[in-house]
Amino acid sequence: MRAGKGALTTKRGGLSAVAGVRAAGVACGLKKTGRPDLALVVADHPAAVAATFTLNRVQAAPVLVSKRRLRGGRFAAIVLNSGNANACTGRQGIRDAEETAAEVAHLLGRPVGQVFVASTGVIGRPLNMAAVRAGVREATRRLSAKGGAQAARAILTTDTAAKETAVEFSAGRRRVTVAGMAKGSGMIAPHMATMLAVIATDAAVDPGTLQRALGEAVAVSFNCITVDGDTSTNDMVLCFATGAAGAPPLRPGTPALDTFRRALEQVCLTLAKMIARDGEGATKLAEIRIQGARSMREARQAAEAVATSPLVKTTLFGQDINWGRVMAALGRSGARFDPARVDLSVDEVPVVCRGLGLGPRAEAAANRRLRRREFGLTIALHAGAAAARLWTTDLSEAYVRINAGYRS
Amino acid sequence: MRAGKGALTTKRGGLSAVAGVRAAGVACGLKKTGRPDLALVVADHPAAVAATFTLNRVQAAPVLVSKRRLRGGRFAAIVLNSGNANACTGRQGIRDAEETAAEVAHLLGRPVGQVFVASTGVIGRPLNMAAVRAGVREATRRLSAKGGAQAARAILTTDTAAKETAVEFSAGRRRVTVAGMAKGSGMIAPHMATMLAVIATDAAVDPGTLQRALGEAVAVSFNCITVDGDTSTNDMVLCFATGAAGAPPLRPGTPALDTFRRALEQVCLTLAKMIARDGEGATKLAEIRIQGARSMREARQAAEAVATSPLVKTTLFGQDINWGRVMAALGRSGARFDPARVDLSVDEVPVVCRGLGLGPRAEAAANRRLRRREFGLTIALHAGAAAARLWTTDLSEAYVRINAGYRS
Repeated sequence: MRAGKGALTTKRGGLSAVAGVRAAGVACGLKKTGRPDLALVVADHPAAVAATFTLNRVQAAPVLVSKRRLRGGRFAAIVLNSGNANACTGRQGIRDAEETAAEVAHLLGRPVGQVFVASTGVIGRPLNMAAVRAGVREATRRLSAKGGAQAARAILTTDTAAKETAVEFSAGRRRVTVAGMAKGSGMIAPHMATMLAVIATDAAVDPGTLQRALGEAVAVSFNCITVDGDTSTNDMVLCFATGAAGAPPLRPGTPALDTFRRALEQVCLTLAKMIARDGEGATKLAEIRIQGARSMREARQAAEAVATSPLVKTTLFGQDINWGRVMAALGRSGARFDPARVDLSVDEVPVVCRGLGLGPRAEAAANRRLRRREFGLTIALHAGAAAARLWTTDLSEAYVRINAGYRS
Repeated sequence: MRAGKGALTTKRGGLSAVAGVRAAGVACGLKKTGRPDLALVVADHPAAVAATFTLNRVQAAPVLVSKRRLRGGRFAAIVLNSGNANACTGRQGIRDAEETAAEVAHLLGRPVGQVFVASTGVIGRPLNMAAVRAGVREATRRLSAKGGAQAARAILTTDTAAKETAVEFSAGRRRVTVAGMAKGSGMIAPHMATMLAVIATDAAVDPGTLQRALGEAVAVSFNCITVDGDTSTNDMVLCFATGAAGAPPLRPGTPALDTFRRALEQVCLTLAKMIARDGEGATKLAEIRIQGARSMREARQAAEAVATSPLVKTTLFGQDINWGRVMAALGRSGARFDPARVDLSVDEVPVVCRGLGLGPRAEAAANRRLRRREFGLTIALHAGAAAARLWTTDLSEAYVRINAGYRS
């Protein structure tokens, strides 16, 4: 049975669900643990490409190199390594990123200007290029239409699970797929997330249209767990479109493009939530919803203040709704509101009404919600009509353990 | 032997080192543990007063009440309770704060408009006024010229030690003292600190001069551990001047006033560092020094980004100089600089030169410094001439333990 027009259907797997894509993941020795640390994702034919990059002033070499490639609008492959961020590595880092891309281009017989590079891991150490070269050769040999899952494993750092998702919809008489893989996962404050994502589609889209669609999807997904402008040195979301589904090109103003944009947004949001849920040491995923702010900007400020407050985050870990900490975070957020009008609820359980606590019984009911793995905090400021939504995790002792010993 | 003109001498003790001051600290039952939770500090004769308050939009009842009192410029007493912040408690909270002040005024036979109130503890619970009334009566009975240390203990929450300091200098033929007490101590991000401080001096100063001196001292001390504008619902620094030393009034433009300002700054800075050092779960005190920023504002932004980064703070706890995290924090701080010109050192040990790491041997030497309890991170941006200095702590597993279980 086929879903109706414009309907999105979730599919199993990730990048391998997309026609015209091959991938591989190998272990080349960049990680001391011997785990997979190099991924290669290839489009069989030149594909359209779009990408968003970190806005951090300190940008890793692969970010600088991939940014230049983006101007061409065409994609042949992306090579991603974990275990080393190739950031703060100076000119040598740029040369290493370019050499990695050149090696891939050479082995695949494709233009080097269409080969992208991404890295994640420790900052400030030179890349072991002997390992990278060997890894690239092995990954090229192992490229397969079923290699998406291996690639998804090879980009992980402190993530505890691979992150893949796929969505399908009808365009004309064809079925079109949008699928992706991502890695996290520092999540104490949303802006600390260090993330990479590669998204592929077999839709036919021109690079400009793809870039606009990706920008919109990232704004309401990855940027709601990683705050715009406040990202790490290596963050990158790359999307390429192979056109291999054989459906007609998606044109602005058509229903098919709208469906594609919804599919892309769903893929991004699913991956973003996977990243948040797998945040370092996270045991909870909380959706912070601000309502009734005076402007979008203030709604976002309020949501960020709550979502990044270590005191709020430890409260979530402790499963005890210490709502005063939420009020204190709102109060220093920069959003304008009257504290005596604020309502707060956990899922649908009201805890604060007009700035005053509803007492121990309400708090006990809310605490039962906090014992779940996922819940929402809804905060109504009653100061205007703007809303914002962010996802955050709790802050656990495990976070500290992971991050204090990360390099050792 | 007397120190020379303008020299500051450290004295033992806190508020009790100041002539014309009596204090007491009692346990009245606001804390479940039965520890002291109510402090009273009294000036024998009407004193000049100055204060700075939290800029949080959500302000506790005692902050609102004390702010009004400040307009009068005169001080008779301050009553402080721990165990309950009297914040987010609506009109009842205001009535409770006013009644507490009125009770003190009545018992002391002083004008209610000269009695200040401060609270710290859990937000959103009504004050147990029966306990407060009993506490105020007992504290009044126990008032003593030697009661400063008891008062300092009664204002603590999760602090592990009382915080007192005193400094002395010569003014004319008299010795003048400035002394204070403070409590912390949430310190994961500087702006999370929940702090109270009471400072007393037996100098003779008019309220306007005192307010200016206090504002300047707070800017380079408490506001360098608690970021201006980003404070909790209850933060308050109050300073009163009894004039009981018998020295001539301090007038603007005189050397004596300059010495007083230095003494006040030293008292504030000593207390601020005590707060930072005793931050929840803190095992390290790090001085973050930014040099060569394009403006004061950018220097401050850069220092704050580094000082509040959970990834940097866990690195300090782990005693491993993962300097890439420092670079990433600088990069998202908003400060403008060329990453390829940044130098970084731990104490005097260089780790990064012109944006590049100096290698494992340099890092090993830096890590030996990180094993100390106190050290400095100096970051030269080489983008301008502005500098800033902040103090921060590491982020330990104990922080999470303390904050996840705080209310339980």
